[in-house]
Amino acid sequence: MKITFLGTSSGAPSRTRNVSSIALQLPERGAFYLFDCGEGTQHQMLRSPLRPSQLERIFITHLHGDHIFGLIGLLASRSLATGGVSPVTLYGPEGLDEYVRCSLHVSRTHLGYPLEVRTVAAPGIVYEDEALSVVCAPMRHGIEAYGYAVIEKEQTGRFDVEKAQALGVPAGPLYGRLKNGETITLPDGRTVDGTTLIGPPRPGRKIVFTGDTTYTPSAVELALNADVLIHEATYSENDLPLAERAQHSTTGMAARVAHEADAKTLILTHISPRYEGGEGQTTDDLLREAQTIFPNTLLAHDFFTYEVQKRTIQAE
Amino acid sequence: MKITFLGTSSGAPSRTRNVSSIALQLPERGAFYLFDCGEGTQHQMLRSPLRPSQLERIFITHLHGDHIFGLIGLLASRSLATGGVSPVTLYGPEGLDEYVRCSLHVSRTHLGYPLEVRTVAAPGIVYEDEALSVVCAPMRHGIEAYGYAVIEKEQTGRFDVEKAQALGVPAGPLYGRLKNGETITLPDGRTVDGTTLIGPPRPGRKIVFTGDTTYTPSAVELALNADVLIHEATYSENDLPLAERAQHSTTGMAARVAHEADAKTLILTHISPRYEGGEGQTTDDLLREAQTIFPNTLLAHDFFTYEVQKRTIQAE
Repeated sequence: MKITFLGTSSGAPSRTRNVSSIALQLPERGAFYLFDCGEGTQHQMLRSPLRPSQLERIFITHLHGDHIFGLIGLLASRSLATGGVSPVTLYGPEGLDEYVRCSLHVSRTHLGYPLEVRTVAAPGIVYEDEALSVVCAPMRHGIEAYGYAVIEKEQTGRFDVEKAQALGVPAGPLYGRLKNGETITLPDGRTVDGTTLIGPPRPGRKIVFTGDTTYTPSAVELALNADVLIHEATYSENDLPLAERAQHSTTGMAARVAHEADAKTLILTHISPRYEGGEGQTTDDLLREAQTIFPNTLLAHDFFTYEVQKRTIQAE
Repeated sequence: MKITFLGTSSGAPSRTRNVSSIALQLPERGAFYLFDCGEGTQHQMLRSPLRPSQLERIFITHLHGDHIFGLIGLLASRSLATGGVSPVTLYGPEGLDEYVRCSLHVSRTHLGYPLEVRTVAAPGIVYEDEALSVVCAPMRHGIEAYGYAVIEKEQTGRFDVEKAQALGVPAGPLYGRLKNGETITLPDGRTVDGTTLIGPPRPGRKIVFTGDTTYTPSAVELALNADVLIHEATYSENDLPLAERAQHSTTGMAARVAHEADAKTLILTHISPRYEGGEGQTTDDLLREAQTIFPNTLLAHDFFTYEVQKRTIQAE
């Protein structure tokens, strides 16, 4: 799984950072998910290897303009582009449906593929298939807001084919039954328990997107043991009053969530343009503030990509 | 007056052209107007000398997404930026009001300045003040669509102060009355007719924006004697069937309008991304096609600026 930051600015675009959008590529299925879709997300995609035709699901954290104003343009351009015919499912708080319906209607946009809008209204699973689930939890931002966790399912352990051969299992369908964990009887009367040939299950990965929020225990809970926590950090610790007023996070709040959740890596995003000016504090300062509390912190920039490593198998 | 093309692509953004938006700077009033506002217009402005705080009026030709999806983001960012407190007036076809209301409501966007949306529903004057008027006319695009003409008013001719002095007009308030065209009586009893001291009126300029349209006599009428006609030219003559199907223009249609309207300069915009690929026809070919019919044709690119020269005074 690979994370690509398409927009890392808060509120309005700057010359170097676009407004919020993060892509999560799922190479096993040749698709990607999008988390938020600020204005200009389709323009950022043009400058990345991401193709709108491979977009499968969009999860919206909340309905502030800098997180949704790129939605309809992207959906419309996906319809114009070759190959964009597979369905797209949109998830987000109440009102998203109204916004999508109104925008498509007024602009007479007719999508060449099925679009489904699912309203997220309570914490829990919002999507699930055989390989992963997407879970949401409420954030604290003065407007209905959700964070999302993408949780890979545990993968079956490795089948020890060498050990099976050493036990004298003859080539053929018996292997399939052993891999399923069944107990089989060999031609010579011995029985072999398949579960003894299967290694420990490989744990799935967990990636968490908070969207906009000030510090909340709900983010800690959502991020428990996450491989990657992507937390907003609009402000420096010095600007704590601004963060409190707008219900955003400081670097310290983001780092505290990562620490309390025992996350492996923290990536800061949604950076206020005030730290880009060259005067006063810089984004380097923001990063250092967070690293004081949570050393394994990174600070995203537009087009920054992060490969989420597979978890190693834990010893039993 | 200076025209800046912020977006010159049709339908969807390409790597080199954004979707539609054109700014008209009015230096006399330290303000600019915008014609259409596709997604990413505010991003383009960040890369230009145009400041959202100086934006005064936005004229929308029609409600297709590539002409309006940048509207709410721009209005919202203008509110966040310093100085953006003067009112903005929006003009466009029925439905624009609904789109603006719905988008602001769903995204909980509260603008820090007055915004007025005026529905354009019939040909005629949509805005007028002492210096200029903006007139609209219906275009032909399969959806309610208007072209706009910005028409400067005739300016009073130059007052010949040297001639007044030679006639012995004493310094003082008599000059003001002569400039108003009044007839005055000098201390020695002679009368002087002010109108004989005022040169011929200086004609105003006319700039016309068609928005999306296929060939229509209404565009010719709107563009009569225009200094600058900005006409869409989505397609090459070779792609006439595509232009007819989508009710867009070919280069030839645009040139024909300029020719029939006796416009001074034609600028082509809204170019299909298909001519950017390097294969087949190029934008150079499009320009040549139009110049065959109307030699004084230019083809816009993003950030292309065009200074509209003042008209010279015609001999009486």
